[in-house]
Amino acid sequence: MKKLIQYIALSTLAIGGFSHAQVVEDFKPSSVNQPGKEYPQVNSERRVRVQILAPDAKYVQLDIGAVKYDLVKDENGVWTGESAPQDEGFHYYQLNIDGASVPDPGSLYFYGASRWGSGIEIPAHDQDFYALKNVPHGQVREHIYFSKTDNSMRRCFIYTPPCYNKDQNKRYPVLYLQHGGGENETGWSSQGRANLIMDNLIAEGKANPFIIVMDNGTWRMPERPQTAPGAERPRGAWPPAGWADGFMNVLTKDIIPMIDENYRTIANQQNRAMAGLSMGAMQTRVITLANSDLFSHVGMFSGGSISVEDVEKNPQFLKNVKVLFLSFGSKEVESGRYNLGSDPKSNVEELNKRGLKTHYYVSPGTDHEWQTWRRSLYQFAPLLFKN
Amino acid sequence: MKKLIQYIALSTLAIGGFSHAQVVEDFKPSSVNQPGKEYPQVNSERRVRVQILAPDAKYVQLDIGAVKYDLVKDENGVWTGESAPQDEGFHYYQLNIDGASVPDPGSLYFYGASRWGSGIEIPAHDQDFYALKNVPHGQVREHIYFSKTDNSMRRCFIYTPPCYNKDQNKRYPVLYLQHGGGENETGWSSQGRANLIMDNLIAEGKANPFIIVMDNGTWRMPERPQTAPGAERPRGAWPPAGWADGFMNVLTKDIIPMIDENYRTIANQQNRAMAGLSMGAMQTRVITLANSDLFSHVGMFSGGSISVEDVEKNPQFLKNVKVLFLSFGSKEVESGRYNLGSDPKSNVEELNKRGLKTHYYVSPGTDHEWQTWRRSLYQFAPLLFKN
Repeated sequence: MKKLIQYIALSTLAIGGFSHAQVVEDFKPSSVNQPGKEYPQVNSERRVRVQILAPDAKYVQLDIGAVKYDLVKDENGVWTGESAPQDEGFHYYQLNIDGASVPDPGSLYFYGASRWGSGIEIPAHDQDFYALKNVPHGQVREHIYFSKTDNSMRRCFIYTPPCYNKDQNKRYPVLYLQHGGGENETGWSSQGRANLIMDNLIAEGKANPFIIVMDNGTWRMPERPQTAPGAERPRGAWPPAGWADGFMNVLTKDIIPMIDENYRTIANQQNRAMAGLSMGAMQTRVITLANSDLFSHVGMFSGGSISVEDVEKNPQFLKNVKVLFLSFGSKEVESGRYNLGSDPKSNVEELNKRGLKTHYYVSPGTDHEWQTWRRSLYQFAPLLFKN
Repeated sequence: MKKLIQYIALSTLAIGGFSHAQVVEDFKPSSVNQPGKEYPQVNSERRVRVQILAPDAKYVQLDIGAVKYDLVKDENGVWTGESAPQDEGFHYYQLNIDGASVPDPGSLYFYGASRWGSGIEIPAHDQDFYALKNVPHGQVREHIYFSKTDNSMRRCFIYTPPCYNKDQNKRYPVLYLQHGGGENETGWSSQGRANLIMDNLIAEGKANPFIIVMDNGTWRMPERPQTAPGAERPRGAWPPAGWADGFMNVLTKDIIPMIDENYRTIANQQNRAMAGLSMGAMQTRVITLANSDLFSHVGMFSGGSISVEDVEKNPQFLKNVKVLFLSFGSKEVESGRYNLGSDPKSNVEELNKRGLKTHYYVSPGTDHEWQTWRRSLYQFAPLLFKN
């Protein structure tokens, strides 16, 4: 991806002012624009075009995918410009106006990269699975509660399936679903579209209905251990095993009992799952290895693996866990990032050999980004609670 | 308010570069900042101070309360500046960077003035009534549905009181609560804090628990009738009586039946209320005058009055409606805006004389803004459903 961007950036530079001639002029407003806003836009090449009035600015840039693209000013003080083609799906971005990094006033805002900021949706070939359709819809509920462990008021979001309000006697399994680093409890039901993915899966009969709990797993990471300059960092030493303890304690001591008290759950291990993306996957690993008496189904999206050593050290995990699901974006696999040093596919084969029913999914053409995680949930959900 | 600002602006100009000497240096981060952000801040004079890195900008301004305040740049390219004192409560604002109007990357974002943008909270002497406390909390649910009348997928937010999930047999009255012009279905439970106001009132035993439905009442207003230049605009001709029909049809034909089907409501006129702020108050007037068989309690916040003529033309309204509540900010009353030409207090007296039990509330020291409306809900809610 980076190479491609560099190549395009260089070739654009090479032809100077004619760069616009390369761009296919079929831009349409992004589906996550603010009401009535014409910009940002996306074209069939998956380029992002932004536009903003800034009559007295020296320069304006579009900052997306860790690349800054210069905009061009017209006689009315309106700046316009576009990016290289982006991956399908959702991306965070921002504008840079004379050195100030600010949200684009045309877009909706999403929490990621440790800030509320602009997001854009690149139409995907498979976007139907997370589209808003006229099917029965579940609800996403903001749930405020006091955590004794954390000694603070906290907030989570709860997805209840479409049928939840119909039969007041029916009880449901629960998936605890975590966001990534720099994100929060809003991510999965906003840019993640977890509710729409579930509504569509349930409408098609492809997944059993269950409750999803999305809480805030942001926890202070310990400092990386200091090593002498040039020395190799000790493998597996960071993040340390105890890192997820803060959220683990809140989850097991406060959140799960609170959910079982307030919702019609089936409150047992067979009907409880945990999954997460990136940092949330690493938390899922630590928390479910330590608590396989609580969780029967485990999903890790773009956040490493359960290793053969993990399973050997935790035989009860092998005994208790019915389904393990591991996934990555294909560009993550290609680049070798985020799999913590081991080849994920051969690891999956080893786990299956040892009797841990492990599913492996690679999202085609995507990186460490929300399209990978939407697809991961879409693949994971139908595997859950098939009793 | 405008006069005060002009006076301060002039006096600040008069003493030139010494304007900072006037400012009390006890600024604290706003309570609605993004996590970890130090700016924007508010001081004990209720001034707003913003700060942003913009090393290459020619000028940066804070745009709040329809006044633009110049920021000053330091040697690191960081711009800082503050506003004149603001009213207590919540305000929308934005930054202007070399002519570009953008959200402040330090604040949370709220929908108002027809855009998602920055908001700030000026601590109020009475902020306790909408504070987040360790009391039982209700939920705010995002509810997606298909509207046959509007032929589209729509979304509303539903507040269910803290006890709603406890006793599955108990049924509740419903308040339909509308936002103002340029706002949407998120306003009341975000900047309006309707859920926290209700949680606190219920915890103190001051209000009966009820469900609140917050939908999107944004509807295209017809053009104002053209009048000859200089000619007086015909009184009462705008907005025309039919203006609220779009939302009225969706509310009465789709939303109310959908709510009564999906929630444990007491589905009758005695247990159904409607209220709104500004445009939402004007919609409440039109909709409840035409449908007093559906609503028994009516609240209009900063959006005119039910007139004696209204009541005379609609005798069934007088017969059916148990409580009418009218409110304004004191600065609205002083300026004479938003009461559509009649003195609200004498109008209230006339209505009471005719047998319509009408309450009148004036929020001290506030204008056409959310603090007025938070206080209005706080005053209105205890009057509801006292059967």
